[in-house]
Amino acid sequence: MAPHYAPSLWARLPAMALMLEIIFIVLFAFFVETEEFKKTKNQEFLYLYANFQDVHVIVFLGFGFMSMFLVRYGFSGTGFGLLVAAMVVQWATFINAFLSSFHSSHFKWPVQINLNSLVNAELCAASALVAMGAVHGKTNPAQLLLLGLLEVTGLVVNQGLIKKLFKNDTFNTTMQLHVFGALFGVMTSWVLYRSEAEPRHEKEKFDSKTGLFSTLGMLLLWMFWPSINFVEAQEIRIMYSTYLSLAVSAVTAMALSVLLSPKGKINLVHVQGAALAGGVAIGAIRTVLDPWVAMVIGMCATLLSTLGFRYMKDHMLFAFECHDTCGVLSVHAIPGILGWFADLFLQLVNTDDATIAIRFAVHYICILLISVSMSLVTGTITGFLLKLKFWKPQQDRKCFDDQAFWEFPHLAVHN
Amino acid sequence: MAPHYAPSLWARLPAMALMLEIIFIVLFAFFVETEEFKKTKNQEFLYLYANFQDVHVIVFLGFGFMSMFLVRYGFSGTGFGLLVAAMVVQWATFINAFLSSFHSSHFKWPVQINLNSLVNAELCAASALVAMGAVHGKTNPAQLLLLGLLEVTGLVVNQGLIKKLFKNDTFNTTMQLHVFGALFGVMTSWVLYRSEAEPRHEKEKFDSKTGLFSTLGMLLLWMFWPSINFVEAQEIRIMYSTYLSLAVSAVTAMALSVLLSPKGKINLVHVQGAALAGGVAIGAIRTVLDPWVAMVIGMCATLLSTLGFRYMKDHMLFAFECHDTCGVLSVHAIPGILGWFADLFLQLVNTDDATIAIRFAVHYICILLISVSMSLVTGTITGFLLKLKFWKPQQDRKCFDDQAFWEFPHLAVHN
Amino acid sequence: MAPHYAPSLWARLPAMALMLEIIFIVLFAFFVETEEFKKTKNQEFLYLYANFQDVHVIVFLGFGFMSMFLVRYGFSGTGFGLLVAAMVVQWATFINAFLSSFHSSHFKWPVQINLNSLVNAELCAASALVAMGAVHGKTNPAQLLLLGLLEVTGLVVNQGLIKKLFKNDTFNTTMQLHVFGALFGVMTSWVLYRSEAEPRHEKEKFDSKTGLFSTLGMLLLWMFWPSINFVEAQEIRIMYSTYLSLAVSAVTAMALSVLLSPKGKINLVHVQGAALAGGVAIGAIRTVLDPWVAMVIGMCATLLSTLGFRYMKDHMLFAFECHDTCGVLSVHAIPGILGWFADLFLQLVNTDDATIAIRFAVHYICILLISVSMSLVTGTITGFLLKLKFWKPQQDRKCFDDQAFWEFPHLAVHN
Repeated sequence: MAPHYAPSLWARLPAMALMLEIIFIVLFAFFVETEEFKKTKNQEFLYLYANFQDVHVIVFLGFGFMSMFLVRYGFSGTGFGLLVAAMVVQWATFINAFLSSFHSSHFKWPVQINLNSLVNAELCAASALVAMGAVHGKTNPAQLLLLGLLEVTGLVVNQGLIKKLFKNDTFNTTMQLHVFGALFGVMTSWVLYRSEAEPRHEKEKFDSKTGLFSTLGMLLLWMFWPSINFVEAQEIRIMYSTYLSLAVSAVTAMALSVLLSPKGKINLVHVQGAALAGGVAIGAIRTVLDPWVAMVIGMCATLLSTLGFRYMKDHMLFAFECHDTCGVLSVHAIPGILGWFADLFLQLVNTDDATIAIRFAVHYICILLISVSMSLVTGTITGFLLKLKFWKPQQDRKCFDDQAFWEFPHLAVHN
Repeated sequence: MAPHYAPSLWARLPAMALMLEIIFIVLFAFFVETEEFKKTKNQEFLYLYANFQDVHVIVFLGFGFMSMFLVRYGFSGTGFGLLVAAMVVQWATFINAFLSSFHSSHFKWPVQINLNSLVNAELCAASALVAMGAVHGKTNPAQLLLLGLLEVTGLVVNQGLIKKLFKNDTFNTTMQLHVFGALFGVMTSWVLYRSEAEPRHEKEKFDSKTGLFSTLGMLLLWMFWPSINFVEAQEIRIMYSTYLSLAVSAVTAMALSVLLSPKGKINLVHVQGAALAGGVAIGAIRTVLDPWVAMVIGMCATLLSTLGFRYMKDHMLFAFECHDTCGVLSVHAIPGILGWFADLFLQLVNTDDATIAIRFAVHYICILLISVSMSLVTGTITGFLLKLKFWKPQQDRKCFDDQAFWEFPHLAVHN
Repeated sequence: MAPHYAPSLWARLPAMALMLEIIFIVLFAFFVETEEFKKTKNQEFLYLYANFQDVHVIVFLGFGFMSMFLVRYGFSGTGFGLLVAAMVVQWATFINAFLSSFHSSHFKWPVQINLNSLVNAELCAASALVAMGAVHGKTNPAQLLLLGLLEVTGLVVNQGLIKKLFKNDTFNTTMQLHVFGALFGVMTSWVLYRSEAEPRHEKEKFDSKTGLFSTLGMLLLWMFWPSINFVEAQEIRIMYSTYLSLAVSAVTAMALSVLLSPKGKINLVHVQGAALAGGVAIGAIRTVLDPWVAMVIGMCATLLSTLGFRYMKDHMLFAFECHDTCGVLSVHAIPGILGWFADLFLQLVNTDDATIAIRFAVHYICILLISVSMSLVTGTITGFLLKLKFWKPQQDRKCFDDQAFWEFPHLAVHN
């Protein structure tokens, strides 16, 4: 009876997932071992452990629940988030270890992984989840798995490339995490656009139940975002900046949502996205900031993000036929790029020497251009791969619907 | 169409919030900078960091979700909690820094803030959220913002006053946090009483969905309460006491809820409040306790809190026309005052010298009287300020209802 | 009116809970005091504190919410979880302290408790919650309290016995925690079986709301499971193993759920249980593992767990009249025993000396047999105790229903 409703997952997901798992196990057996714990590094380890937990919550709980506002897509939003993230952390652990041993002079196997490897792998998974946000509801889990793996591969290759070209370790990854993920996802979603599906799908709304769950997810992200920036920058003052920036963002997002609403009311989904913009923007900045600068950046990022939600999202849908389910462009890409330019600006202000300043500017803009091109190209390629009939995606009227993939109790009760 | 239902937020909230944010940014630009991190204080910092995260969860997630049991007030409960807390932490950071530099002999600007400042600011925000609990559903977000800022100002001034008068830093703030916040909120709610609204509003109930969300919030508070007491007392044994006291509270709350129920059933809202009473009471105690004493205090606090819920809440509504939405009087004020007297009693028992004992007693009672008077007066003043027509609160029949403030999907889908 | 629906809790729960609390307070007053904190142990303490928080979340939030998938059993699932866990931690703290002072040569009272005691008590509470999972919905809270206390007593006595017999502290407790709890619960449920209740109760299903709440609980368990294994093994590499094993489990669980489903769809409840199997299995292992071995064990545990859910659960119900509400046999017992044998196998592989190998094997199998017999016997006895009419359980048609125990708003509003 089920195939009548939607193509069964039977033929694709299990084979793909189990095969990938067996490949990963073989790769880990030959190439990966765990590092022994050194007592001397105890203190740094404790920091990292605390941060690891926060990143863990953000990746597996925060993103999953935040993407769950769609009224009939709750199981898929959290379940497929777990599926993709759990798969991607394994792949990212391996590929990061592989590339780092490739960079170092003494090429040695097996590579030792430690807590740091897991944190890096989770940040890569976060990037994949950002990309997933753009295509949620229009793809099946097998497609999402492929998307996650390709996105992370692109991200890691891009980082390796930049490291190789600019011989600079300090150039941050957060910006790339958000901007790369968001642009990748948007391009994939553009390729996958289904003109038959209504421009605005009837199931693409939220109700008070799913709205509250996504509020939970958003609050988890909002609360632990300072940790995610802290773990990357290894500088406590970045945490204070993120904290203040997010506080301003939350207030500003609510104020602007009312101001830009025709009825003078607050839009839950807009506020949830825009309240995080300040954290994304600060994440792209490596310079230590004065508190008030962080607050100004948070305000600007929220302003751009809210405008993006109110005007750009629909515009992109109608003009470019590009549908961005969770609005990742407004939440991640725009604030990320803003933060990037703010960092450049702050570097230029702090530099007296014109030669160094120009070198900085060139560096920054090249890195941005490379990352953006890379994400656009890999995203487009991924989109075409996912468009193959082979994947048997759900029908148009089963988009944004859990019933395409999940056994439901009133059916399950008789089995 | 919206104004037909409720006065739009357009004219008040955005202007107020954005103006305040700009003022805060200017204040921070001139007066606040972040402290550089000293490696030598690493260990203390790690403790504080762990505690900071727990307080963070309590303030932004716990209080928000716990106040969400009202059947149609979920978005507002969490959303306005975030709005007010995010605003208040900025204001509290500034005003605390300002007052502490004022107290110290070398008056120097800008003041350096650190993780400690953020923890203190969040505790102030917790106090504001307690006060908000009494007026939830009967005010709009602009009013709540004003209430939050005034409450925190009152709290900080009260603390400064006590510090000045009694030259004693060790007198705790937790008691003040809960008792001050709760009494402040109740007075405000008393002034704001709308006789036209039904004594018991039809929307003032919970359903299984909102009940579960508020259980989530309550469990978060219950779980991380030991940390909130730990961070203030800087003494691990206070954490053990709080832990045991809360364990006894949870069991006792459920037993008493059944015992006092006419039908022998458990009342979810009563249990949620009373199970926290043990933690509030222990928070007011600075003496190191034997485990069994903590357990007895937890039991007594829960008993008083449950009685307060069952009998006092309705009594206050009918006799004094004072409506206390979340029952903050029973959850925060009564157990806080109980803990305060328990602390005094324990101090007296431990003191042999009659002179010192009398001095202690006078100290304690003066501080309590000052805090209580201060909270009653500032709460009443705030109530009259909020009663002004200027704020355009929701109509009576739109009390306890998200629709007054939030865009809902079946409307949003056509915009 | 209520007794018409269900026997009131009035006569049993309050008396029992309050009496137990008073007994506990007396026991604590005579026999327990808190250890003073030693600065020198600061670093270990910080680790333990971080782990304690995670175990705390697992016990009070994770188990409570995970057991909440039943469509009308949300308040009871979380509320009674809190009730039993809060009671059990007190009892376990006392009985652990009592037994450990009994084991040591210098028998001294009062016993000093510290953070370690609380962590151990919470692990015991986790075991009681596992046992509760099998009888959820078919018992009233007074019965659950008794079950929790008896289960923990059995568990602690069993551990003491094994320690006495084999003079070996390193034999782990996690295996016992899960296997003991699960078998205990299943036996109790078998004795309590009500032939009048339908084999599959109409209320024994989930809906999209309760499914999402239980997803939240499951994700909390999944995320913090590495910490629960870490805290027991005190070895960071066990954490990495658990992490990788759980990642493989999550992916495999989803793949297998589709593969074994007649309609090619994912079953939420099965996936939730099976995704944790990898963590349970690794928890039973004390040998340090290569990453790939952990991943293989995770995959096998998930396979067995999924098969158990799909085929064994119903089989047990029809063949043995044993009803296992949350499927604890598949989630906890089977993976725990698998991990136990995997540990034995790894020990044997690493041992060259045949004599030592045989001694190991005998040790392992004896401990397993003792634990299993102990859990089966104590579980059966507990079942017969709970079957007494004295406890006044809910009627058959009020099984799996909150209304038997909780005041509901549409009733409460008029009181």
